[in-house]
Amino acid sequence: MTLHIAIDIGGTQLRAGLYRPDSLNPVKLRRTPTQGENKTPLDRLIALVESIWPEGNAVDAIGVAAPGPLDPYAGVVLAAPNVPGWNNFPLRQHLEDHFQVPVTLGNDANLAALGEWRYGAGQGHRHLVYLTISTGIGGGVIMDGHLLLGSRGLAAELGHVTIDPNGPLCNCGQRGHLEALASGTAIGRWATAEIQAGAKSTLADKLPATAREVAAAARAGDGLALATLERAGYYLGLALANYLHTFNPTIFVLGGGVSQSLALMIESVRESLAEHVLSPHYLDDLVIATAALGDEAGLIGALVQARELRSTERSPSATG
Amino acid sequence: MTLHIAIDIGGTQLRAGLYRPDSLNPVKLRRTPTQGENKTPLDRLIALVESIWPEGNAVDAIGVAAPGPLDPYAGVVLAAPNVPGWNNFPLRQHLEDHFQVPVTLGNDANLAALGEWRYGAGQGHRHLVYLTISTGIGGGVIMDGHLLLGSRGLAAELGHVTIDPNGPLCNCGQRGHLEALASGTAIGRWATAEIQAGAKSTLADKLPATAREVAAAARAGDGLALATLERAGYYLGLALANYLHTFNPTIFVLGGGVSQSLALMIESVRESLAEHVLSPHYLDDLVIATAALGDEAGLIGALVQARELRSTERSPSATG
Repeated sequence: MTLHIAIDIGGTQLRAGLYRPDSLNPVKLRRTPTQGENKTPLDRLIALVESIWPEGNAVDAIGVAAPGPLDPYAGVVLAAPNVPGWNNFPLRQHLEDHFQVPVTLGNDANLAALGEWRYGAGQGHRHLVYLTISTGIGGGVIMDGHLLLGSRGLAAELGHVTIDPNGPLCNCGQRGHLEALASGTAIGRWATAEIQAGAKSTLADKLPATAREVAAAARAGDGLALATLERAGYYLGLALANYLHTFNPTIFVLGGGVSQSLALMIESVRESLAEHVLSPHYLDDLVIATAALGDEAGLIGALVQARELRSTERSPSATG
Repeated sequence: MTLHIAIDIGGTQLRAGLYRPDSLNPVKLRRTPTQGENKTPLDRLIALVESIWPEGNAVDAIGVAAPGPLDPYAGVVLAAPNVPGWNNFPLRQHLEDHFQVPVTLGNDANLAALGEWRYGAGQGHRHLVYLTISTGIGGGVIMDGHLLLGSRGLAAELGHVTIDPNGPLCNCGQRGHLEALASGTAIGRWATAEIQAGAKSTLADKLPATAREVAAAARAGDGLALATLERAGYYLGLALANYLHTFNPTIFVLGGGVSQSLALMIESVRESLAEHVLSPHYLDDLVIATAALGDEAGLIGALVQARELRSTERSPSATG
């Protein structure tokens, strides 16, 4: 039996799972903080993978999801702000050298899109746009049954497109990106600023407000919280119209923490989408779905890529 | 010898060319107004194609470029504002019924992208974004060597993405699309409005100004005309940054009338692109090129598709 290992690298924790063929339930799943005393993140990752490595070395391939920007063709992490030292870091080569099995590396949002497409909310579609909306906004696109990567794997950064050049600053330093208008960060900041400017709200005594607190207040009927989510929904709907005109998908899959409050925003999302769409043909049979795989989407996408990797590809042992 | 016919359908004229294999020089090329007395546009098109049809019926396939929105899978023109009666119009079926050869139908900007990629400025690239900038702005995208179509062929409407929700009205009725900020129409309108509001310019005595007149005035050193092109360049650069983040291409190919004034705008395009790009990795080896095929790009793209059509596909005679 050939087993696969999937890894998800986050700013705060590393996760690694060991999977049998045709199952999404890991045989083993372990996690550890990304950073800690004495060991580098790479050493911590290697130790984590060794801790789940099966007897007899029957691992066929390893799939890795990591935060971008990264080059999936070269297997290189170009920059990882939350992982010290990972600049132009040849992660795939390090792991292949150590474990002597083929390794694939992909952007976590891209792989989450792949996971949702194969095993989650996007099954059966051939043209899918995925957004993960939490602190930031990441994206992944499946076009005609293929993951959209671009020349260096840097495509589908859908949170970082300007939709209002006069809009607020984005986490990336640019102005008016979708992420600056509809992410969890944007929702918390907007509510906080409105209250500080005098708006009445039940959130007034616990500033700065988080997106989670705004959603809870909105559920309890707080007017400012509802208006804040409506505003985010407006910009999200505008961005979805842009993505319809750009990609013409049959489904949007929305993941990440903020998507759990989608019910509070969906009406304004749909209104804004209808207002901004170029032609009703884009809306024919269009599905807007919440992600089904939750926090596991990136890990499962990494598993999909590991399973697709033929053992002859990029395998030092196969060519050596 | 198998010959192919390529057709380009415009709002004002129909063009049809007859081509030998492996040549871009038509054996015959004829054109006729799209509308005229007594005959429908379809009848005019059929008569035009018959006028170039070779002796002995040795036509292998016909490729058609038409203005969108259209469904290339179904071969149906969904709406053609400049061609009366062409709503949900099954153009491919009409032509196949009449000529008894396989027919392909594609959006003209998409096919121009395909033409420029195969035979024009984009040769050798695998990830290309094409914009045609004239009265409006159309787009076409090649990703990993494939034309991006989306679920119904409505993808890559790159002129119709909102980049400023408070911007001017677009030809389509929406607000702040790229087309409303950087097309020829936008350039002419902006210069005209500025002069009407009191700005000094050599264009003042021939309002409303056209983009062509603005470009000529800019070449002669007119300050307002230069500022107008710089403004369009700013928004174009901002949009190109968005398309870098979305598609990560290695080349932008810019066609259409306004691209002939690109030299006057390219500095502000590049400045704006550098200002708005998320990471310098997107600019590695990036080429910004003017289109090479001019007015023929759509026709040549239609030819490419006709040549790729295997004779067993969608051929009534092959299945009958």
